[in-house]
Amino acid sequence: MLAPADVIRLEEDAVVLLDQTRLPGERVDRRCATVPELCAAIRELAIRGAPAIGIAAAMGMAQAARRSSATGIPALRAELADASTQLAASRPTAINLGWALGRCDDLIAGTDGTPDDLRAALGALARRIHEDEVARCRAMGGHGAELLAGGARVLTHCNAGGLATGGYGSALGVVRAAHARDPAIHVWVGETRPLLQGARLTAWELAEDGIPHTLIADVAAGQLFSRGLVDAVVFGADRIARNGDAANKIGSYTLSVLAAAHGVPCYVVAPSSTIDHAIATGAGIPIEERAADEVTQLGGRVLAPAGTPVANPAFDVTPAANITAIVTEAGVHRAPYEESLPAAAT
Amino acid sequence: MLAPADVIRLEEDAVVLLDQTRLPGERVDRRCATVPELCAAIRELAIRGAPAIGIAAAMGMAQAARRSSATGIPALRAELADASTQLAASRPTAINLGWALGRCDDLIAGTDGTPDDLRAALGALARRIHEDEVARCRAMGGHGAELLAGGARVLTHCNAGGLATGGYGSALGVVRAAHARDPAIHVWVGETRPLLQGARLTAWELAEDGIPHTLIADVAAGQLFSRGLVDAVVFGADRIARNGDAANKIGSYTLSVLAAAHGVPCYVVAPSSTIDHAIATGAGIPIEERAADEVTQLGGRVLAPAGTPVANPAFDVTPAANITAIVTEAGVHRAPYEESLPAAAT
Repeated sequence: MLAPADVIRLEEDAVVLLDQTRLPGERVDRRCATVPELCAAIRELAIRGAPAIGIAAAMGMAQAARRSSATGIPALRAELADASTQLAASRPTAINLGWALGRCDDLIAGTDGTPDDLRAALGALARRIHEDEVARCRAMGGHGAELLAGGARVLTHCNAGGLATGGYGSALGVVRAAHARDPAIHVWVGETRPLLQGARLTAWELAEDGIPHTLIADVAAGQLFSRGLVDAVVFGADRIARNGDAANKIGSYTLSVLAAAHGVPCYVVAPSSTIDHAIATGAGIPIEERAADEVTQLGGRVLAPAGTPVANPAFDVTPAANITAIVTEAGVHRAPYEESLPAAAT
Repeated sequence: MLAPADVIRLEEDAVVLLDQTRLPGERVDRRCATVPELCAAIRELAIRGAPAIGIAAAMGMAQAARRSSATGIPALRAELADASTQLAASRPTAINLGWALGRCDDLIAGTDGTPDDLRAALGALARRIHEDEVARCRAMGGHGAELLAGGARVLTHCNAGGLATGGYGSALGVVRAAHARDPAIHVWVGETRPLLQGARLTAWELAEDGIPHTLIADVAAGQLFSRGLVDAVVFGADRIARNGDAANKIGSYTLSVLAAAHGVPCYVVAPSSTIDHAIATGAGIPIEERAADEVTQLGGRVLAPAGTPVANPAFDVTPAANITAIVTEAGVHRAPYEESLPAAAT
């Protein structure tokens, strides 16, 4: 299994992350010594997944502090405020980014030591956030595995695995925990166009762990439901509103509609750092629109006529009504989510 | 607009078809002088779409008769029976293939002239089937356009255009007829993984005709429905059972579920040659399973880890209950389809 430090780590002079755009063909580290380099890695999805980009942002703040030559706290604070602003703008949908930066900002605002004390404290915070997210994944895995019957055939979307969370995984954490007690579990892996995180990343993680799986084009999901071959839908989330509406990779909503139409449970698995208590419903979640060439080109090959107009939203919102339960590290939560969802982790 | 002879035609020494695997990058004809060459073109989807492969099969029979050196009717009949068997086995799901071959077989069985008379008659039959299918598309276009309100935003899947029918199109025939009277129509084009007939072929046809459209990854359809941006779903069919269950490109069923869940009408548009009155329900329709590498590779680029298990069904079945109406050349048909669907064309 992928170790947390394989996914992302804070080295002496850089945030070092496994470049997810190169998988499964190549396993290559990408070193980000500066905040702009890390922002580019986040924008290009070299590191992606809501918890993982939260971890990356915290490590980016620690690295920015170390790189700074500021000799006084006010100057260092000013530089770090700029770093935080840049990192916050790198992607809009995942709340974990803002959550992790908020924890860094609180630490910076409350510090009463020297610049080097603050540098050390930010490094320790980033590492703790990483460790905590992985621990939360293991807790979610235990809670979520209880929801799956023996031999369950689980449909997942995108990659909510160790690559997305800094290790172990949220939705794939549930799969891992279930597989540990029931080797008969089977995973349907939606390829997840346009960037194929299912085909490239989830299939790779499952193969590494020897968990039985079958890859499908996203369009084949409906037929699996109609033939009675799906026992549960399990996916992650990038931001969950107070009422339980959950933004996740584009296509998740369609799976929730199929699940509801076929009487199949649909589970969202995400750490409490993904819950945005400041937003009442999914209508308040900003949805990132990404470049047209993600749809019209693949590896330099042109897939559509030149100039074809494209809509390429990166996320959609699954309404709470379509979600059977939300699994966090605190347990299994059911509607009404306003009452059942836990506070964000600290 | 693409002329029928641009899609497929019977020349002196070959069936000549526009190679749809090379679009939109290149517009290249593929010449099939023999039945095995034509079967390969059908299997490789150089020509695809249920009506178009019916036309191709009839032209293949005419070409087989011309290539034959048989001097007597019994010998020619034996050779043509072999050609018919080969063509019938080239793809399993579209009934039009069997329908067109059945018309050829009837002609061959009923002939009382010389071998050259039979050769001429098969050529004339193939050309008539082609002309009739295009005429049926124009009739369907007229009927179907009546179903769309002004400024309708129509979601389509795969390619049910002129490329699929030998000219004009079934689902895209409805779009063309609607656009002729209402330039404000807009088409959402699902890219249609794995082979991207939406991105490569439908976007190309619509651009050629100047019909406004936007390409989406298939996974983005759900969000369009949830935002109220889809007024109608319109797709073709490869085989329709007596009760109205309709097999079409994998992913069509999911769109029908989304349409039903959002109160959006779902129309199936296909000529009567697509109706299989010998099959009571969709459960009787054979579904082609295609090669794994259609999902795991694209243009030589590897999209998933080596050895990843894949399920790649080419079609799914939309149950009659999810179909608002079926449009044929005879008009607009509604449930119960056992009573409303027309007899197959002759």
